[in-house]
Amino acid sequence: MNDELYMRRALELADKAAALGEVPVGAVVVKQATGEIVGEGFNRRESGRSPLAHAELIAIAEASKRLGGWRLVDCALYVTLEPCPMCAGAVINSRIERLVYGASDPKAGSCGSVIDLFMYPYNHIPPIERGILAEDCSKVLSDFFKQLRISKSKQKQTKAK
Amino acid sequence: MNDELYMRRALELADKAAALGEVPVGAVVVKQATGEIVGEGFNRRESGRSPLAHAELIAIAEASKRLGGWRLVDCALYVTLEPCPMCAGAVINSRIERLVYGASDPKAGSCGSVIDLFMYPYNHIPPIERGILAEDCSKVLSDFFKQLRISKSKQKQTKAK
Repeated sequence: MNDELYMRRALELADKAAALGEVPVGAVVVKQATGEIVGEGFNRRESGRSPLAHAELIAIAEASKRLGGWRLVDCALYVTLEPCPMCAGAVINSRIERLVYGASDPKAGSCGSVIDLFMYPYNHIPPIERGILAEDCSKVLSDFFKQLRISKSKQKQTKAK
Repeated sequence: MNDELYMRRALELADKAAALGEVPVGAVVVKQATGEIVGEGFNRRESGRSPLAHAELIAIAEASKRLGGWRLVDCALYVTLEPCPMCAGAVINSRIERLVYGASDPKAGSCGSVIDLFMYPYNHIPPIERGILAEDCSKVLSDFFKQLRISKSKQKQTKAK
């Protein structure tokens, strides 16, 4: 598996989120035997008006639909940001066979940051690869929040006039 | 809030899951100020062919759609079985203000059984009420699995003939 290749695709998806004003996180599900991408997603919490519209859940939903079942046999999940508990739980529930993520998330990351869900006796524990293209994955987030601060500051200045 | 009333509705939904051959778990989201049910769901993992089709996620998705946003202000979630990490994470992400569940789940329960996610420093920790109609909520599950064993045993006997 070419981890960087798939993470670059997840980064492209994160850019799509940013273009919509969403916190930029992107994810892809890859069928390991063929290397085919079978699911893609990017964060759409605001535009989708849903707390479930995280990149990972969208990619997993697409992969399940495409593969025709809830068990994502031989699939790897690539995501630019360390999964939250909901998404780490979805990795367990879908039996994702390998999890690869880029940047750590000290606020909600549940694969080593706030907790490591995969250290507990759930019925499925995939191997995890951390830190793939971590700098790029962090930068897309920090650039987004920097831009957001600039926009808000400009709005305040306009209102004060 | 009449906890038993809403848990009885969640149990009715669990029965609908059982009728489809799904592990019977039901959930409702209730707007606390009015007592109105704004989301309902029952487990549809097999029939929906999705690892995400847990009762809680379906109920939360419906409530978000109805209320028009990802933040489920003033909402309580009632579910017959202790949420798994995915669903407990969705409670955090949707800012559910109160979580009520019936039976404990020693295999995947993440509100006190395998772990208690809400003991960790996530950005939203709702109060939890455990064990509401626990016996009824356990019975619907044990009856389902008992029936499943009987069916499988009959199938084996038929094949052996």
